Amino acid sequence: MGVVVNLDEERNPSPLDRLAKLVEKDLLAANEAIVDRMHSPVSLIPQLAGHIIAAGGKRLRPMLTLATTRMCGYTGDRHILLSACIEFIHTATLLHDDVVDESDLRRGEASANSLWGNKPSVLVGDFLFTRSFSLMVEDGHLDVLRVLSQASATLAEGEVLQLVTANDTETNETAYLEVIKAKTAELFAAAAELGAVVADRPKAEQDALRAYGMNLGIAFQLIDDVLDFSAKEEALGKAVGDDFREGKITLPIILAFARGTDEERDFWRRTMEQLDQKDGDLEYAHKLLANHQALDDTVERARHYGAIAKDAMGIFPDSDIKTALIDTLDFCIERAY
Amino acid sequence: MGVVVNLDEERNPSPLDRLAKLVEKDLLAANEAIVDRMHSPVSLIPQLAGHIIAAGGKRLRPMLTLATTRMCGYTGDRHILLSACIEFIHTATLLHDDVVDESDLRRGEASANSLWGNKPSVLVGDFLFTRSFSLMVEDGHLDVLRVLSQASATLAEGEVLQLVTANDTETNETAYLEVIKAKTAELFAAAAELGAVVADRPKAEQDALRAYGMNLGIAFQLIDDVLDFSAKEEALGKAVGDDFREGKITLPIILAFARGTDEERDFWRRTMEQLDQKDGDLEYAHKLLANHQALDDTVERARHYGAIAKDAMGIFPDSDIKTALIDTLDFCIERAY
Repeated sequence: MGVVVNLDEERNPSPLDRLAKLVEKDLLAANEAIVDRMHSPVSLIPQLAGHIIAAGGKRLRPMLTLATTRMCGYTGDRHILLSACIEFIHTATLLHDDVVDESDLRRGEASANSLWGNKPSVLVGDFLFTRSFSLMVEDGHLDVLRVLSQASATLAEGEVLQLVTANDTETNETAYLEVIKAKTAELFAAAAELGAVVADRPKAEQDALRAYGMNLGIAFQLIDDVLDFSAKEEALGKAVGDDFREGKITLPIILAFARGTDEERDFWRRTMEQLDQKDGDLEYAHKLLANHQALDDTVERARHYGAIAKDAMGIFPDSDIKTALIDTLDFCIERAY
Repeated sequence: MGVVVNLDEERNPSPLDRLAKLVEKDLLAANEAIVDRMHSPVSLIPQLAGHIIAAGGKRLRPMLTLATTRMCGYTGDRHILLSACIEFIHTATLLHDDVVDESDLRRGEASANSLWGNKPSVLVGDFLFTRSFSLMVEDGHLDVLRVLSQASATLAEGEVLQLVTANDTETNETAYLEVIKAKTAELFAAAAELGAVVADRPKAEQDALRAYGMNLGIAFQLIDDVLDFSAKEEALGKAVGDDFREGKITLPIILAFARGTDEERDFWRRTMEQLDQKDGDLEYAHKLLANHQALDDTVERARHYGAIAKDAMGIFPDSDIKTALIDTLDFCIERAY
């Protein structure tokens, strides 16, 4: 399993490492639950699920649940299984995403579909979805079930929406935000909201944590979009320029398209809609993004959502966990550099 | 939407038609709920889901829920949404099955994946899974959630199990039964069990309906296996011999393999495991199945499970619905001829 606490960085730990340290016992228990609950007598299931779950994920989403629950003063252990549940929903989505995107790499490792083929990836994804559902039912609280069923439904709808808008250069910033809210930020929102729900805190606190998670999720995805153009391959864990090659419209491209000349728009239509790409096109795309400050301004947009997330946390009393959650916002945004 | 009650057959209605007539109002309400709840602002979702849900399904599984609930004396309307939920789980599975099997036909119509491609089929399947989950949570009774989450998890596990055993001629009858229990019969079992759960009947009645559904489901799948070799294409709604061409090991082949000579086993290994098939192989397979009475004996096995299902119904007082449910068993088995 991926070890989240990195000993080498102990002297100058990142906010994520600090968060992991603050909920260390819970995180170990959650990791155990994840391994335990992906078990099945059908050995292909833990093999394939284990491959993707072990592939160096940051456990960011389950950690949100663990941290917010503790921040809300909860002393029980319901949040352990629920954070495993969040990770299973996320993993199921990754498996199906890789099938849909025909990706060969996931977090720097061979993707499950490239190793085992599409069929097991589809079906083991289904298994993890249903297993996540069993975990929620095992928790057995209707308020939790409502949060998580709503999140799963929105996420699935967002995936279809992304498919529909994926190669459409007419997609504007507002429409794109709807897509990433549904397909990425909603699960962050649910993961954080669960903290106040499990701790039985008032609605205002549930809403605040939901807003924190939602805006963190939006910022996180926008930075991912930037990294797809700007990152080093080793750091990204997938090929740089993948979004471009797949014709995936993201905010940097939406900005460059809106700010561009007619000729430039023809370039985006040819490469992104018709997927007619030649040598040098990715380099030219980079040039256009730079000319229009599209990457920098996408980071600026991410900062805006980060600021909203930070303010949402204002109603909670100060604590180490609260500070680490707020610092995580900057950390997720600054990884763009 | 498929109209289940066929006016032409009014004078000599099948047990399924009688069942549909007995719960006619509920069935109309369930059909409405199905159309209503597959709605999404992402128009591809109702388009694609509507295609497969309208494609002439018999609504057998949701009808089991409607009929058993009424047989148990329930007078409310919780079973309407729950039967829609059962249909969504079933439809999600069909969509993913067709992707995994690369099928071009489903119930005599072009399959969703052949019309829209694999990607939307995977993602709309996910959407229907999560929508089914929202419906259960809307019902909000934990006993219902347990039955349905267990069924979904078993079903997903069964799909993976089938993938693993699919081309393995070493699969024996016991192992095969485990597969079809999980991937087919479990949902029948849950659909029927819900009747007693919703009506708040004692555990003995819940178990009896579960046994009825499980054994009906096994019989139903075994007859499907027979029909894949013996049916007329128009009646089957898919190509005859599909299982053979895909190397899908089913009970008829397991029986013929077990009863065959070494040369015959080599034939099955070549055609089913190595998928090395030539002109005339399907005809030769038919000949071997006939020589070893494999189809007839598979029908006999189905009768055995049908008999168990019938006896399970013994504890319920006589009623029109009970009679129709019992007659449905024979009807599902006799369709082999």
